[in-house]
Amino acid sequence: MRDAYHEELDSIGDSLVEMARLVGSAIGRATAAILDSDLKLAESVIEGDEKVDDLQHDLEARAIALLARQQPVATDLRIVVTSLRMSADLERSGDLAQHVAKLTRLRYPERAIPQDLHATILEMGQLAQRLMAKAAEVIITKDVDLAMQLEQDDDAMDLLHRTLFQHLMDERWKHGIETAVDVTLLGRYYERYADHAVAVAKRVVYLVTGEHADELQQDIQPDIQPVSGVEGA
Amino acid sequence: MRDAYHEELDSIGDSLVEMARLVGSAIGRATAAILDSDLKLAESVIEGDEKVDDLQHDLEARAIALLARQQPVATDLRIVVTSLRMSADLERSGDLAQHVAKLTRLRYPERAIPQDLHATILEMGQLAQRLMAKAAEVIITKDVDLAMQLEQDDDAMDLLHRTLFQHLMDERWKHGIETAVDVTLLGRYYERYADHAVAVAKRVVYLVTGEHADELQQDIQPDIQPVSGVEGA
Repeated sequence: MRDAYHEELDSIGDSLVEMARLVGSAIGRATAAILDSDLKLAESVIEGDEKVDDLQHDLEARAIALLARQQPVATDLRIVVTSLRMSADLERSGDLAQHVAKLTRLRYPERAIPQDLHATILEMGQLAQRLMAKAAEVIITKDVDLAMQLEQDDDAMDLLHRTLFQHLMDERWKHGIETAVDVTLLGRYYERYADHAVAVAKRVVYLVTGEHADELQQDIQPDIQPVSGVEGA
Repeated sequence: MRDAYHEELDSIGDSLVEMARLVGSAIGRATAAILDSDLKLAESVIEGDEKVDDLQHDLEARAIALLARQQPVATDLRIVVTSLRMSADLERSGDLAQHVAKLTRLRYPERAIPQDLHATILEMGQLAQRLMAKAAEVIITKDVDLAMQLEQDDDAMDLLHRTLFQHLMDERWKHGIETAVDVTLLGRYYERYADHAVAVAKRVVYLVTGEHADELQQDIQPDIQPVSGVEGA
């Protein structure tokens, strides 16, 4: 009985890793789609999100069944409850990748992103994908140091987000309001995506140490707000 | 023992209602602050969010302790797990109200919102507060019909969000890029706030009926994207 139980716990972990893998791929493909204005690729990201949602529903059902049947306590209980939260973070990350893809579709055949912002958006997309890959690794390895590193990577995302705002606020901005709105939302999608990846890693820290990552290290992921040389948050 | 247990379950419900009350008040006050450029009021919203975070941490600790000690099954188990999710929605709503307040502070003493958008923003703020008040009522009454109504109210928020985008996309827009960025983010904050209020109500539906609200009724809360006469989502 105990063996079947730990198998079930492991399989919940496997599902989390699979979700992280899918949403990591999704943000990478969504970024390619928006930069290349590739409608087919965008559609595949939009449709692919259903798989992530299905995985989450399935994971939730299994976690709740496990709680009811096995009534875990202590660490095992924490693992199950925390897994539910991680699955919510991952599901939301998938939504955000889908938003990037939908913006591509909305503007198609136009390109949503002007050429002079391509490098920044590309970097945000790559960083987001890397953050999620690390989050998956943290789930597998339970490596607290790697989890902490993830929080620092998130600073890089904040910097990119600021760069984006600097472009927007530059008086030489010549791409009009619609593009400014698109770029503002896009920046927010990547930032929130990164926040969720970091949250996943933090939750692993909580599992391993019993302490919230914030208590181990000062919280370094303030929500960014638009800046004009001023700190936003 | 069973009595203390049900008392504890009730007290978790009370905390959820208290959180909903606080974040409902927060979005109302944040809206007043941004419309009047009232720095003091904005600061009070920003500081007040700590209370919401504390309530959430406390609720989570109690819920997990309850799972460990009492090992509830069936409905009671569902209530505890769902309460954890609702508290996450409410905590996030508080963050979003705080974002509105922070935008006020960032632009102070300037006003973030041009006069011709005041009515729309006011309406979004009022609707958000009303949605949260109804969500609290749904938690208390477990009224499935009221919960469904909340989903329909959310359509009104989508309409307001579209109105905001129409202003932004209007070629007569004369408030510049910075304000366009602020208004874009602000619209997103209200929309997400409303989504979380609706999510809280939906979770109550799940508790009462055992079915996800989406399965009872078609999902009517697509994430809005910028529009220009086209459906975004």
